[in-house]
Amino acid sequence: MTAQPFRIVFAVFPGMTQLDFTGPHQFLSRLPDSETLVASRDGGDVATEGLVFAGTAKLADIDACDLICVPGGATATQVALDEVFVSQIRRLCRNARYITSVCTGSLILGAAGVLQGRRAASHWAWRHLLPLFGATPDAGRVVRDGNIITGGGVTAGIDFALSVLAELGGEDLAQSLQLGLEYAPAPPFNAGTPDSAPPAILAAYNQRMAATLPVREAEARQAAALMAKAR
Amino acid sequence: MTAQPFRIVFAVFPGMTQLDFTGPHQFLSRLPDSETLVASRDGGDVATEGLVFAGTAKLADIDACDLICVPGGATATQVALDEVFVSQIRRLCRNARYITSVCTGSLILGAAGVLQGRRAASHWAWRHLLPLFGATPDAGRVVRDGNIITGGGVTAGIDFALSVLAELGGEDLAQSLQLGLEYAPAPPFNAGTPDSAPPAILAAYNQRMAATLPVREAEARQAAALMAKAR
Repeated sequence: MTAQPFRIVFAVFPGMTQLDFTGPHQFLSRLPDSETLVASRDGGDVATEGLVFAGTAKLADIDACDLICVPGGATATQVALDEVFVSQIRRLCRNARYITSVCTGSLILGAAGVLQGRRAASHWAWRHLLPLFGATPDAGRVVRDGNIITGGGVTAGIDFALSVLAELGGEDLAQSLQLGLEYAPAPPFNAGTPDSAPPAILAAYNQRMAATLPVREAEARQAAALMAKAR
Repeated sequence: MTAQPFRIVFAVFPGMTQLDFTGPHQFLSRLPDSETLVASRDGGDVATEGLVFAGTAKLADIDACDLICVPGGATATQVALDEVFVSQIRRLCRNARYITSVCTGSLILGAAGVLQGRRAASHWAWRHLLPLFGATPDAGRVVRDGNIITGGGVTAGIDFALSVLAELGGEDLAQSLQLGLEYAPAPPFNAGTPDSAPPAILAAYNQRMAATLPVREAEARQAAALMAKAR
């Protein structure tokens, strides 16, 4: 009798921010004695931001997993309204040992009802939507609350993945993969958060987001209403 | 008459380290007034590390580009021996305004003959192979020598991309994308380089690489011989 490999599932969707997914995938797929599946609502091709990920599994075809990871992206609040996708996430979360997300993927976890009463991270610009799902926003880059581990926006997925690897395989494993993937970041600028970015950069960013904000807020409210009904 | 968009080409191949490619792609594809193409030797699907990138263009079908970026990976020295792939890189480099790579992609640029007399970065474990191609290894995370900009191993591709964005679109653009992609890295460990990793982690890593090293060195020597003939 051989042990089952530790099964990781990335639940992907069209319009996701690909680095939310590809960053953690690069690290987590190297966990020894594990298998990493990439799955979507309908299976097959998933297109996003000029890339097409082919041959994804269908979420409904996956009976269970040990760790689920939901990335985010511009379409996250729309996906939070997709009852097929969200119900599959809810189902897989039920038996997962670890429930995780990167960026606005936490809003999808929220819509699945698994963040109620929990602290969670999200992209800084959308973190304030978490309370709609009963979650407490946490500005941490990697946030752990029990078996729920969430990362902040996009590139936080790499720090998230190292933390998850340390949890699953120990610190030596995490550090060995960090060395192999040469993760010694040296950003040429210091503008990665609202606090560190030059005020003019932040203001321009927020101005560009002004039209999108009410749309996504409305979608998140609607997703929260669906969540309440699904209970 | 409208201006042509700035054309970026990622030259991908089976067995590449996907984050070498997806990290910079996430940032560079957001450059305004640009188009980003993903191209491979034969076009179509490119499989690597459990992911399949569908619908890539065929390198030979691309007449020219403004910036070429070659990622690296475990198969980089094999690809450096692929005369079809390498000759396409050589051709595109001829008229590109910027010639770039991430990780061991610099060994492929080297095989294309474009790094002779130039400083270049690479993954720390393979940097010593650059002199075979007449290049000077540079331990910098992002190295610029004229119109050649090269990044170090894997995750260095993100720092590389921000530097390239600043060059192409200005520092405000780079910082705005840094904010949007929340790039304020906070690695939970400090093990991303041979100097910073715990000695035992580094020793174990090198031991695992010991079997691979002579194989890749031989491939790189052979690629260098082909380069000399192709001149």
